[in-house]
Formats: sequence, C-alpha cells, structure tokens
Amino acid sequence: MLWETNQHSSKDSVQRFVEEPKRLEQKLLPYDVIGNLAHVEMLESEGYMSEEEAEAAKRELKNIYNQEPKVESEDVHTFVEERVTEKTEAGKKIHTGRSRNDQVVLDTHLYMKEAAIETGLEIIELVEALEDFSKNHNQTVPGYTHQQQAMPSSTGLWASSFVDALVDDLRMLESVFDLIDKSPLGGAASYGTSLDIDREMTADLLGFKEVQQNPIYAVGGRGKKELMLLQSLNHVMLDMQKLSEDVINFSEDQQIFRIPDRFTTGSSIMPQKKNPDILEMVRAKAEEVNAAELATRGVIGKLASGYNKDSQATKKHLFSGVQNTKESLEVLSSLIESLQVSENFSMNEDVFAAYTANRKVEEGASFRDAYTDTKEQQTYETFSETPAPKNQTYSEMAKSWKRKQREFEDTKERVLGL
Amino acid sequence: MLWETNQHSSKDSVQRFVEEPKRLEQKLLPYDVIGNLAHVEMLESEGYMSEEEAEAAKRELKNIYNQEPKVESEDVHTFVEERVTEKTEAGKKIHTGRSRNDQVVLDTHLYMKEAAIETGLEIIELVEALEDFSKNHNQTVPGYTHQQQAMPSSTGLWASSFVDALVDDLRMLESVFDLIDKSPLGGAASYGTSLDIDREMTADLLGFKEVQQNPIYAVGGRGKKELMLLQSLNHVMLDMQKLSEDVINFSEDQQIFRIPDRFTTGSSIMPQKKNPDILEMVRAKAEEVNAAELATRGVIGKLASGYNKDSQATKKHLFSGVQNTKESLEVLSSLIESLQVSENFSMNEDVFAAYTANRKVEEGASFRDAYTDTKEQQTYETFSETPAPKNQTYSEMAKSWKRKQREFEDTKERVLGL
Amino acid sequence: MLWETNQHSSKDSVQRFVEEPKRLEQKLLPYDVIGNLAHVEMLESEGYMSEEEAEAAKRELKNIYNQEPKVESEDVHTFVEERVTEKTEAGKKIHTGRSRNDQVVLDTHLYMKEAAIETGLEIIELVEALEDFSKNHNQTVPGYTHQQQAMPSSTGLWASSFVDALVDDLRMLESVFDLIDKSPLGGAASYGTSLDIDREMTADLLGFKEVQQNPIYAVGGRGKKELMLLQSLNHVMLDMQKLSEDVINFSEDQQIFRIPDRFTTGSSIMPQKKNPDILEMVRAKAEEVNAAELATRGVIGKLASGYNKDSQATKKHLFSGVQNTKESLEVLSSLIESLQVSENFSMNEDVFAAYTANRKVEEGASFRDAYTDTKEQQTYETFSETPAPKNQTYSEMAKSWKRKQREFEDTKERVLGL
Amino acid sequence: MLWETNQHSSKDSVQRFVEEPKRLEQKLLPYDVIGNLAHVEMLESEGYMSEEEAEAAKRELKNIYNQEPKVESEDVHTFVEERVTEKTEAGKKIHTGRSRNDQVVLDTHLYMKEAAIETGLEIIELVEALEDFSKNHNQTVPGYTHQQQAMPSSTGLWASSFVDALVDDLRMLESVFDLIDKSPLGGAASYGTSLDIDREMTADLLGFKEVQQNPIYAVGGRGKKELMLLQSLNHVMLDMQKLSEDVINFSEDQQIFRIPDRFTTGSSIMPQKKNPDILEMVRAKAEEVNAAELATRGVIGKLASGYNKDSQATKKHLFSGVQNTKESLEVLSSLIESLQVSENFSMNEDVFAAYTANRKVEEGASFRDAYTDTKEQQTYETFSETPAPKNQTYSEMAKSWKRKQREFEDTKERVLGL
Repeated sequence: MLWETNQHSSKDSVQRFVEEPKRLEQKLLPYDVIGNLAHVEMLESEGYMSEEEAEAAKRELKNIYNQEPKVESEDVHTFVEERVTEKTEAGKKIHTGRSRNDQVVLDTHLYMKEAAIETGLEIIELVEALEDFSKNHNQTVPGYTHQQQAMPSSTGLWASSFVDALVDDLRMLESVFDLIDKSPLGGAASYGTSLDIDREMTADLLGFKEVQQNPIYAVGGRGKKELMLLQSLNHVMLDMQKLSEDVINFSEDQQIFRIPDRFTTGSSIMPQKKNPDILEMVRAKAEEVNAAELATRGVIGKLASGYNKDSQATKKHLFSGVQNTKESLEVLSSLIESLQVSENFSMNEDVFAAYTANRKVEEGASFRDAYTDTKEQQTYETFSETPAPKNQTYSEMAKSWKRKQREFEDTKERVLGL
Repeated sequence: MLWETNQHSSKDSVQRFVEEPKRLEQKLLPYDVIGNLAHVEMLESEGYMSEEEAEAAKRELKNIYNQEPKVESEDVHTFVEERVTEKTEAGKKIHTGRSRNDQVVLDTHLYMKEAAIETGLEIIELVEALEDFSKNHNQTVPGYTHQQQAMPSSTGLWASSFVDALVDDLRMLESVFDLIDKSPLGGAASYGTSLDIDREMTADLLGFKEVQQNPIYAVGGRGKKELMLLQSLNHVMLDMQKLSEDVINFSEDQQIFRIPDRFTTGSSIMPQKKNPDILEMVRAKAEEVNAAELATRGVIGKLASGYNKDSQATKKHLFSGVQNTKESLEVLSSLIESLQVSENFSMNEDVFAAYTANRKVEEGASFRDAYTDTKEQQTYETFSETPAPKNQTYSEMAKSWKRKQREFEDTKERVLGL
Repeated sequence: MLWETNQHSSKDSVQRFVEEPKRLEQKLLPYDVIGNLAHVEMLESEGYMSEEEAEAAKRELKNIYNQEPKVESEDVHTFVEERVTEKTEAGKKIHTGRSRNDQVVLDTHLYMKEAAIETGLEIIELVEALEDFSKNHNQTVPGYTHQQQAMPSSTGLWASSFVDALVDDLRMLESVFDLIDKSPLGGAASYGTSLDIDREMTADLLGFKEVQQNPIYAVGGRGKKELMLLQSLNHVMLDMQKLSEDVINFSEDQQIFRIPDRFTTGSSIMPQKKNPDILEMVRAKAEEVNAAELATRGVIGKLASGYNKDSQATKKHLFSGVQNTKESLEVLSSLIESLQVSENFSMNEDVFAAYTANRKVEEGASFRDAYTDTKEQQTYETFSETPAPKNQTYSEMAKSWKRKQREFEDTKERVLGL
Repeated sequence: MLWETNQHSSKDSVQRFVEEPKRLEQKLLPYDVIGNLAHVEMLESEGYMSEEEAEAAKRELKNIYNQEPKVESEDVHTFVEERVTEKTEAGKKIHTGRSRNDQVVLDTHLYMKEAAIETGLEIIELVEALEDFSKNHNQTVPGYTHQQQAMPSSTGLWASSFVDALVDDLRMLESVFDLIDKSPLGGAASYGTSLDIDREMTADLLGFKEVQQNPIYAVGGRGKKELMLLQSLNHVMLDMQKLSEDVINFSEDQQIFRIPDRFTTGSSIMPQKKNPDILEMVRAKAEEVNAAELATRGVIGKLASGYNKDSQATKKHLFSGVQNTKESLEVLSSLIESLQVSENFSMNEDVFAAYTANRKVEEGASFRDAYTDTKEQQTYETFSETPAPKNQTYSEMAKSWKRKQREFEDTKERVLGL
C-alpha cells in the first residue's frame, strides 16, 4: 500500500473490514486502465511526464489491460499504480493530480455507460420478441381486472402492453445515460488540484460528452448516478415481474399459455411437476434490484459533503442490479420467443357485459341506463373480432443504442491506441 | 353510488375500508372536471351526445370547477357524475366509453404534470439562491473528507456543488415529465371500449403531447409514472438533505455559517438553545419522500396485468411526496438567501499538505515521492487564493419550465372555455 | 409558545414546516395528561409543588382529559402546560424536571402499549375465526406449489397455517410489548436533570414494569421502539396479505371459495363484476405498513446521540401503521367468519403422484426408484381422506393479552383518581 | 440431477438462472448433513430403512461432514443425496418422506440458530467493552442535542446508553431465537407426507424445543423467520451506527475521542490524513443490513401459500446480514477497547443554563419563571461533578447465550455420534 498511515502492520482484520472483496475490484480493472491511459496522455501533454515516461507507463497499462492479472492490492487503483511502478519509475507519476476518489468515480462512470448500453440493447431484444409474439400469436383471450375475467382482450394486446412499458423504460434509461455521460476526472479528493490539468482533454479522450465541473459534486455525486441507473433498472424489472406474474397465471389453470419444458423444472418429491421457476426467479430478482436501489439510497443518505468511505458500499449493489437485470432480460427474451398460446381455455360470457351496454348506447340509451339494464337482464351480446395491438415504433431508439455502443467501442480502441 | 353490487346496504365499515379519505379525492376534483369537459366535447363530436346535452353537462362541470364543492360520494369520479346528473339527464351520458380506472389515471397525469412544473420552478429558485450565495459569499474554508478538514475549499465552491446537483435533478425531472405527458384517456377499464371514441382529440384538448396507445399499459401504468416522479423527487430531497447536513455541521462548532434566528427554534428546558430544526426536518422529509417512493414500489410490485384495487394506495404517497418536496424547497431557498458566513473559524494548516506535495511535483519530483516527503516533513506551503466556482448555466432550463407552466395554464383556460 | 427564541414574530411558514399536523398531536392528548398527572404527583411528593398547587394542577389536567379540547398550540405538551397555566399559577411548575423530549417519548410509550394490546386482542379474534373455519369448513382441496396444483390438501389445513403464523406474530408482539414497558420519564432533554425527581415513583404510577435508566437511551430510543412495534405489525400484515392473495386466487377460476357479496364491490363500466376490493386493499395495506417501518428506519438512521428533531417524523408512521393493521384485522376477521367453501371445483389427478410414489415405498421400493417409476407410468393411486389440521393452543396468550388490557385500564383509572 | 423434467439437456443458461451460487449452497452443507443424519435415524426407527442401510448412509453422511467436499450439483440437498447414493444404494432412501422444500427450511433454521448464538455472544463482548469504558474513562463532556452542545454529560453516560440499547437488542434476538427454535422437518413439499414419519423424534434429535405442526406454515414460513432475525440485527446495526456517528463527531473538531492509528486509514493524495474508515464502514453496513431486511421482505411479500421458488432469493440476504453484523460487532468491540478520551476539548458555559434554571427552582421559583429569568440574564451557575452511569445488569443474559451455545454444540456432537 502506497499511502498507509503509520503502525498499520498488525491491522489485518481491520483492513479486511474496510476493503472491498477482490472480485468487485476486478470488475473495474479494464475501466481503471482506460482512465489511466487518458490521464497519462494528458499529463504528458501538460508536461508532467516526459514522452518516454508516458510511453513506458502506457506500455505497462496496456499489458495490464490485455493480461487481466488478478487484482491483489488494497484496491484496483493501488494495484494498477503498484504494478506499473514495479516495471517503470514512471509509475510514480501516474497518480499526479488525481485521487483514488475521482478514480473510482471515473471507473464507475465508464462501467455504467457500458452497462446501460448493454441493458438498452437487451431491452430492445425483449421488445422485438414481444412485438413478434403480438403479431404471430394474436388470439382472443379474456382480459382480467381484479384477477377476474372482465372484458375480451387478446394475447397481442397483452404483449403489446409490455412493448409500451419497455419503450418508456428505454427513454428513462437514455436520460440517465446522458446524466452519467460527464467526466468526473479532475475532481481529485473532492476539491480539485492545484496542478494544471486539462479536464476537457481527458473527458474528450474518454468519450464523455462534457466535464462535470464542480469537483465536490463530481466526486460526491458517487452513489447518486448509481441510484439513477438502478431506479431505471427497477422499472425494467417491474415490467418483467408483471409479465412473469401474468405468464404464471395464464399458464396454470387458465391454460392460455404453454411454457416449453426447457423453461420449467421438476420437483424432488412430486414426479408430475413442471414448475415455472424461471418466472418466479424473475419475480424475485425484481425485488433484488429494488433492494439494490434501496441499499444505495440508504448508503448515501445523510452524508455530509466531501468524500466519505460509506460510498464504497454502493459498488456491489450497482453490479448486482445490473447483472440481475441483464440475466432476466436474456432469459425472458428467449422464453417469449418460444411461448405457445393454447386454444384450450374458457372465457366467461359475461366478459361481454360492457360491450352489451355499449351496444344499447349505440342504439340511443344513456350509458348509465344501459349499464343498469344490462346488469338486470344478464344476457349478453357477443362479438368475435380479436383486438389488434398498435405497437409503438422504437427503431429510432434501437439505432440510438447501437450508435452509443459503437461510440463506446471506438473510445476504448482509441484510448488503447494512444 | 351508481354501480354497486346487490346487498350492499349494511356494509359501511367495509366500504370505508376500501375508499380513500375524502381529502385525497378533493385534490383531484379540478383535474377530474377538466378531463370530463374534454371527454364531453369529444362525445358530442362523435355523436354520443347532442349539442344541447353537451352544453348542459359542460355548464354543470364548470359550476363544479368554480364552486369547488366538498367531495362526498364514494370517489371524486362518482361525485362528479352524480352531481351533473342531479342537474341534467345528460349526466347519465358522460361516463360513456370510459371507466373510473382511466379517469383516475387521467386525473393523476394532469396532477403530476402540474406538480412537476411547480417543483421545477421551485428548484430553479433554490438554484438561483445558491448561485447568488456562491458569488456574494465566497470565502476560503476548509474542505472536508471523512468529516475531517482535508483541503482548502470555499463557500462558493460548496454552494456551486448543489447547483450542479440540482441541475441534474431538473434534467431527470424533465425526462419524467415527458414520459407523463401522454394521454391515458380511452383505456377504459384496461381493455379499451367498443365505442367510437377519438383519443387523439381528447389528448389534444388536454394538452398532452401524444396518446398512450396500449390500453392495458395506459391504465396499468398507474403507479409506474408516480414512481418515476417520486424517484426524481428523491434526488431533489437527497441534495437538500446533504445541504442541510452541511449547514448543521458548519453552523455548530465549526462556526463557518450563521443561521438567522428566525430559522431556529428554542428548547422547553434549556433557555440558551437555538436549534436548527428546519434543517433537521428537511433531513427527515428526505426520508419521507424516499418512503413514499418505496411504498409506491411496494404497492405496484407483483401485480398481474389489468386493474387491481391496490393501485389506489399510491395516491397518498404521490401527494405527500410532492408536498414534502415543495415545502422543503421553499424553506431552504429562503434560508439560503439569508445565510451568513462567519469569519470566525479555524482552518488546520495541514489542509495544505496535498498542495505542498503538488508544489514539489511542479519542481520536478514524481508525485509518489513528493507525497512521501511531505508526509515525513510535516511542514506545509500555503496559499491564500479563494477557489472560485464555475456555475452551470441553466437559463435554458428555466425558460423551458416557464414555458411548460404557460402551456398548462393555457390548456386549463381552453378546456374551461369549451 | 413558552420557549421561543427571539425575533420569531414573522416566521409562520417556518413554524408550520417544523410542526406536526394538529390531528397527530390530538391523538397523544390523553396520554400526555396521564403522564402529567403522575409527574405532578411526584413533584408534590418531592416538595417541588405544594399540596394545593398539585391539587389545582391535577384538577385542570383531569378537566382536559374529560373535555378533550382541540389541541391548538405548537404541540400537545405546550398546549397542556399553557392550558393549565391559564387556570392556575401552578401550571408554571408542571414542567419542572422534564423536557418535551421525554414527554413525547412517554406519551408514545403509553400509546404503543395500548395499541399493542388492542392489536393483540384483534389478532386473537382473527385466530379464532380461522380456527372455527378450519373445523367447520374442512374439505379436501388441491394444495398448490409454484401456483400449480401439487398435492391433496384441505381448507382446514390451509386456515390452520395462518393460525400458526399469527400465533408466532403474537409472541413477537408480546416481546416487543415487554421492551416498550419501561418508563422513559426523567430522561429530560436526553441528559437527565439536576433536580431530585423520583423516577421509580412515576414509572410505578404509570404502570410500567421498570425504569429505563440511561437518559440518553431513554429519550434517544425514540423511533427504535416504534420501529420494533412496526416490525412486528409487518409480520401480522404479511400473514394477512398471503391470506388475501390465497382467497383472491381460490375465489376466482379455481372456485374453491365464495366471498359474500357484501365484501365485494362493483365496476362503473362492467355491470357483471363483483370485485374482491377488500382483499386487494389488505394486500396494499401490508405494503403501507412495510413503508411505515422503512420510513421510521430511514428517519432514525445515522442520527448522532442526543435529541434530534428528525425523530418527530416517526409519529405519523407509527399511527398509520397501527391503524392500517387494526382495520385490516377487523375486516378480515368478519370476512373469514362468512367465507363459504364451494364444492364446485376440479382437482387434477396428478396431485396424487407423490402419494403414489409413497405407496411404492411402503411396498418396499426405495424412494428414488419409486419416484422414477411413478414419473414414467403416470398412473396414480388416490385416496379420499381429508387432511385434518392440528391447531395450536393459544388460550394462554389470549388470557395474557386480556390481563394486559385490564392492567392498562386500571392504570388509567388509578392515575385519573390521583 | 435426480428429478429433472424431460428435455432439459440444453438448458444450461436457464438452469444457472434458477440456481444459487455454489458458495451459498456450501454454507448450508454441515447443516444439511446434520439434518439428514437425524432423518435417517428416524427412517430406520420407522422401518423405512434397515439397520444396515441406515449405518451405510450415516457413514457416508459423516464422511461428507468431515471432508467438506465442494458442493457441485444443482443444490446442496441434491449433492448430498447423490454423493451418498454413489457410495451406497441406501442413498436412494434418504429422501423418503421429505422434500427439498422442507430440507432447506430445516438447514436454514439450524444455521439461524447458530448465527443468533454467535451474534448474541458478540453483542455481549461489545456490551462488556462499553461497560468497561464507561467505568474506566468516565469524564465530563458536553452532551449534545440537535448536534449542538446542550447540557453537561459524561463519556460514561454516553457509553452506558449503548449498553442499554444493546441489552434491548439481545432481548429481541432471544425472542426471535425462540420462534426459530421449532422443527419444520416433515412439512415436505408444503403438505406433509402420507408416510409414517415421527416429527417429534427428529425435532428432539436436532435439539429443537418443539415441532412446527402445520406443514404449510412450516415450509411456507421460509423468509418470515429470516426476516425476524434480520429485523433484530437491524437494531444491533442501528445502535452501532449511532455509536460510530458519535465517535466520528467526537474525534474530529470536538476532539473528545482519539481513535488509535491502527483503526484509521490514509489518503492516496493527502499525506496528512488519518481517516475513520472503519466507523464509516459500520455506518454503511447498517444500511446493508437494512437492505437485506427489505430484500427479504420484498421477496416474500404477496406470495400465495405453498412453496414458491422466490423464497430461494432470501438466502443470500440472510447470510450477508449475519456476516455484516458479526464483523461490525468484532471490529467495534476492539475499537472501543482501545478508544482514548482526550482532555483537550472545550465546553461552552451555556450548557449549564438548564442547571441554572433548576437552581432557581430549588430556591423557590416556578420552573417557567426560572427559565425566563435565566434566558434573560445569560449568566450561569456551574458544577463540576461528572455524571455517573448506572449500567444494566446482563449477566443472566450472558449465561443464557452461553447455555444456548453449549446446547447447540451438544446437539451436533450427539447427531454426529448416531
């Protein structure tokens, strides 16, 4: 450790208590290297490193990127600095004008940008699966309110409702992405640095749209951006949770859907069972992502300005929230692609009650009288047309997320080519 | 009640259990009338009401809007229908092609649009107060990390960090506003209606940017939009909570700030006390708004598609979240406007340690060596320049929110003039 | 206001911001009076009030108790002191040796004791209703796992599972009651008082089992005891939520239960509907109580020792948590009392698969082989015996809660007779 | 996998999605083996296994216990059954009359009992450290309210307030322990088994106080008992969070406490810093434990009766809640043992204002007049006695937890000796 206070020798258990599990640090390694490369390039351009020093440092940084060594020091930032310093004296200069505080915020911003992009693209896959389903498997089914058959609906209308929901989520995700797309680098320990660093240059090299000017906010915003991302993932999960709840209901006694066997699991005691475990897990994972949001909110709440160690505890919740969401999206997309609609279910005739009242309205009755009549008579007019969904267009959004992905890839390549 | 099931006569306590407190229904009254006016206009245009009927109904609706009678029926929607029907038979037609389910979603959308606008404008007031403070009261103070003096900072830099934070919140609020700005009217009980209604027309009359097409989502999105708004308010409150925490800290033993007496309260037992109760209440209210978000998330989680009564329980949390945020913004704006900076505090010399190391870097040392040297020597170079903040520009956003406000007012006027 | 700091004249909006809604203060009025009566008795016994002064003060306090005037001052404590002082100079002495801080904690402890008692007794009513149902309406029904028919079960077994759950809740509630049953009076502003007060005497008068000795904890424990109570109510609500979920499911397409009409509500658009709104509201209210717990936890988290204004914000969540729980218990008890079991449902034959495998085990096969055989053959042995529930005994607990209630009533009478 | 449904061959990613990480399963291995041993003993006694079969199975089970192999199958229950079956045909019988559903509930109950015992004993260590501190380092210090100096207090009074708090927590933990101390074994898949199993015998062998009779509740209580334990741990963490907040505050500018260097960490940029990272991490971990509670509550909420896969997701939160609490207790105990009190701090004279008013009361003034006088005069009488704490006795509780530990160890030994 490069900056320990004195007398630390025997404090192993204390140290373990304040450090992150190494697997979490490992996840940030590529982003940390990318950030260091841009920072070194800037230090050279500002005259804090010679061309030779910069070259030596960059060479080692790229080696780390390519070799992905196991992170072993106190944290990923120390690890990278120590590793570069082992190979070249230039390593002692790479921390010039910065702090681990702004380093971890930078790494996390890069991670979040990539995570948002990947999630965005996976949402689009699910949207496509749902749209296909709504077109290819449209069939009249009862629509439920209060978990009771209520009015005629269709499987297409049902699937399409999730297209609308997920498109809203995509928009929220995109605006969160824009708020993350600012470079915190240069905020240092929260109060900037007295050295002449060029924040615009590093922001530009790293593909950020702009610099987050205020250093207290740039560094102290840690947790806030994470919270925003998790809030938007919470909506994605909420939609998938509702979808899962519906498929569970519709595939049981209602028999509207048939879940392919490979998406079910058996019981250790009841030989006949085919359980929709996947859908139950999506339901549970939505609660996990919600808890990750709450944990993040809890950790950053009531903290005074300036870096506080607490914020470190947001890392694991960010990672787990992203992972749970992405896994759920993947598994649901493939389930929807193979979901089958049965023709073997019953629809109560009284789902046509509102239609019957409306028919009386068309014949001139006031709605309230028509309602009362229908209620008393309890005989219903029916119809057999299947409600057709109107799907939202989202091709613009699909393009936008693909462009974001391309830009992020380009940035990585550019920085690794420095 | 117009649509009771049979044998309801003696079920008062049951009914109380499922109904909302009347004060919550009252809050939706003006929005419900506005929505009814647009709906009646459309019913006339589609031929479901004659011109005379429409005029009679509109006359009564405007009376209700102007007289603001106390809501007394089961809910505000029933109340309005009953009230109009008392005066004119046309009242029996105003529920044609709709459901209380889409009515309450419509009312809430209108309420949320107005609430977002008012909140946005109040955020801008706080931003202005902070920007003024950062310019007029900029003074060197210690910057803290880990609640310890760490580096030189300034009151201007501090205030400016909240400008940056709140501007991010404004952006998030704006994107939530856009997602709310879609008309759910026509979703009916969740599955649309068989009558020929013109959803574009009502959306247009009510000032919505577009129609939320899918009826299941339009109605079933209840709670989701509320959650989005509360999520963005949570960020506003988090920023104000941090600001309050700082002012409490800085006005105590550190003596950096002086809170004017009228923002403090006394003790019933200790004659000397002047307590920063307001700031503690902002801190607590941030937790209230967070709890309102969680309650909303909890209520809508795991619900199957189609209307479920649970969603009714989101109403009070939406209202309380909005109110707590607005009140906190108001009181903090006026506190910041009169907050005074003392000159009577001490700054430890060692806050210049990082500066000292940087000076050695400027003289050619590598940062890591400079750091080690400074640590051993414990003598520090100092400087006396006060760090100046770079405030974000937000005039564009101020204009945008004022425009939204004007448009909302215009819409109300237009509808009331139908 | 008796203790205002200077220059408060124009600070109305600030004051409103930090004060509680009067209806919350009103709820504490009887407890505040009871606490004052015991305190005055002690002040007299310690010589801080003459017999005459004490008599005069007590007379006025009892008047307040009986007349229940509308609380109008800043808070209930100030209101009571001002009201007594209006009538007698002795009023100026009743705050001797105490603080509003320990007053509100005392009032809340008394409130919580009574709330726990009332809730406990209502849980017992629901337990009785469930036990009766399990005996009088026991019938074979499919038992579900993963929301699919799984094994034979019975309505009795089902009802009895909630008896077991609620009895656990009662035990948790009782241990929380014991932790609340300590007198905080004497903690003053958090650090005790230099006057000679007799904390044992007031604790005894007020029916507390013991004194909470440490004043910092006695006063600073505010919110913690509230949280404990809400945690135990959360379990009561969770059980009722599951019960509601089951009844909703079983009364729909499965047709196992029939909910009497007076527990259902209609639709404004669909004449045929009878919706289980009550059960959906119980489901939602469980989330409300959970949110009340979270709000309380959020408010008290990260607070430093010594009174902080934040804790005031726990009051409304305590009240709403208690009210929601009690109302839900009442309405569910009466629903269970009139719930009917249909005989008109279908049970899949394959719920006997595990039984079939067990039969093979009884004939000598290993379970795993029997399982595999059954799975392959897909023919099942059946049986027709209805599983009988074994209900827990809880008469001891019923007695204990009734005794608590009697003791609390006796205490009130005794104090009012001082 | 022993009970897969057909066509599972290619469903790897699906399977990963529904399975737990192996490290979580690993944690339950010893408890699963213990449970299996008791179950096998009972199966033999009921005639479902011959003496030879039982001996063979028990031999293999003990091997697993001693060798602690890495869990590799779908879950720990399958792993143990497969592993035993590899060595002896008797393995095919050990699942007789049970289900993985009741197995995991049993394993978790045993884990929770041991976790509660370990936590209880560590709470007692912290209580002892605090009591010692309150006796050996008692010194007058300002007592704070609203984060301002308010009244004279003492370090002893302060430390003792946490003794009182933690003793309450211990009582809550003990009552939760009692609710966990019931055997769920025999609940099978939620509806019991048709085989003649002896639930009293296994409960007794495994050291449970009684049998949880109702099978639906025994199995369906999963998550509920976990929630109860986490709720009680939440209180332990809340107390440690407050303690940490205080030590952070008192060791900064107030300079009341001095944290030994080995409990502080350095900065990578500011050579002078000694940061109280440990205390900040305790503060953050309290939020983690709260989030674990919320996650558990979220996962089990709204689930219908009978096993649902969701409940699996409670496992990781239980483990992390227990681990965070135990680690925090350990590190805080050792910090308190070496915490030093400075004599180098200032106390404002006006903390004696309430004392001054009380002195006037002792001279005959009414409190309210004395208060007003003191406020006007602003001159204070002082005193120099250090408030002495009255520590709770907890030796009875210490004995009780040690006895629980002994009993748990005896049970393990007894079962392993079968």
